[in-house]
Amino acid sequence: MRFWVDPLPRPGAYAGVVVVVDVIRATTTAAAYLRAGARALVLAPSLEAARALKGREEVLAGEVGGLRPPGFDLGNSPREVAGLEGRTVVMATTNGTRAAHAVRGARAILLGSLQNATAVAQEAARLGEEVALVCAGREGRVALDDLYTAGIIGKRLQERGFRPMGDGAVLALLLTHQPPLEVLQASEAALALREVGLSADVEACARVDAHGVVPLYAGFRGEGMVFRRADAQEP
Amino acid sequence: MRFWVDPLPRPGAYAGVVVVVDVIRATTTAAAYLRAGARALVLAPSLEAARALKGREEVLAGEVGGLRPPGFDLGNSPREVAGLEGRTVVMATTNGTRAAHAVRGARAILLGSLQNATAVAQEAARLGEEVALVCAGREGRVALDDLYTAGIIGKRLQERGFRPMGDGAVLALLLTHQPPLEVLQASEAALALREVGLSADVEACARVDAHGVVPLYAGFRGEGMVFRRADAQEP
Repeated sequence: MRFWVDPLPRPGAYAGVVVVVDVIRATTTAAAYLRAGARALVLAPSLEAARALKGREEVLAGEVGGLRPPGFDLGNSPREVAGLEGRTVVMATTNGTRAAHAVRGARAILLGSLQNATAVAQEAARLGEEVALVCAGREGRVALDDLYTAGIIGKRLQERGFRPMGDGAVLALLLTHQPPLEVLQASEAALALREVGLSADVEACARVDAHGVVPLYAGFRGEGMVFRRADAQEP
Repeated sequence: MRFWVDPLPRPGAYAGVVVVVDVIRATTTAAAYLRAGARALVLAPSLEAARALKGREEVLAGEVGGLRPPGFDLGNSPREVAGLEGRTVVMATTNGTRAAHAVRGARAILLGSLQNATAVAQEAARLGEEVALVCAGREGRVALDDLYTAGIIGKRLQERGFRPMGDGAVLALLLTHQPPLEVLQASEAALALREVGLSADVEACARVDAHGVVPLYAGFRGEGMVFRRADAQEP
């Protein structure tokens, strides 16, 4: 049993079990929506794609510069999760969706964050013996917050008998000696949120093992990738 | 005064002072050749390019799978540095040369390693107020050993009043709490050298501040990039 950490996605390189990490905020928020009762969520590659995917029933979530765009119901914050029971949330994100699309050849795709670190490691271990932790990064550059989160999830895999393979895994594990909130707050992603008054989102994203909900890829819908709770019964 | 760390080169993104890091082994060996008395070294992008650049006077250095190729004088080891007084060494490397070529728009290009960490930080600080530390990486993937070395050089810049900017710099600085030999030995580059019996090279590459020789870019020669000692008088 082994795991790798990719500081940036390598399109087309994944066949086994993959955990995508975009901790500030896409993969944290995605799990929060499902936890709040959403039946499914759809990761759309842009605001336009999200609008095109919205029917009568869907809730639209997205951001421009960290803020909710006009006509959207939610702003991609893990703290905005009321009234979602049974709904489908269409989420426009950039880095998170790009990363999810990059790993689409994989046998299973999970969304990982600090909030579901232990649960996502457990689910990944249940699904396979070779796990890749894939960091979304920030516009093609390595993101501190994602690499740290991959380290925390990697540590959970290590505790389950998985061996770290390669420089990315060693690097990510070395970071785990640091406290989560301090690392996340030092990241460029947190700085950008702070500038629009959303520091509380960073604090939410830093809560390790806050819950056990894991988004699991369930197929395409138009340009969007659909995720459901890993523990949900498929209809 | 500020510095950045790029875990991988971003071709065309550099205008100021750049320090290229390929600690196992290209940038360590490059400085070792100049320290041993070589007048200049030429970083060639391939074995073929190196052969084409060799005249009667030049010493040819290169490797295939860590070992000296047939017809070459040296094997790119920082421990093979005898008899180079006044000579020009043509060095075939892959990752190191690719990184050096990626930063060629920069105003000044230095080669950094653990062995010249303090000296290269000093020279970079002398040359400009905005310094990019650019890790070569390993076939397009982030390399632990290079990022660690960028952290050690970054710490020296910080001590001189430079502010770390962005996720790469924070990430690299977090690694510097670890001991150099242990980190280098945990890297994929070290593993590859160990497999061909060259562990002693890893130990050599891990010697922090072993000397004060800094290779400084001095122009192109064919496909090769020429470097001389930063403290050498140009003819």
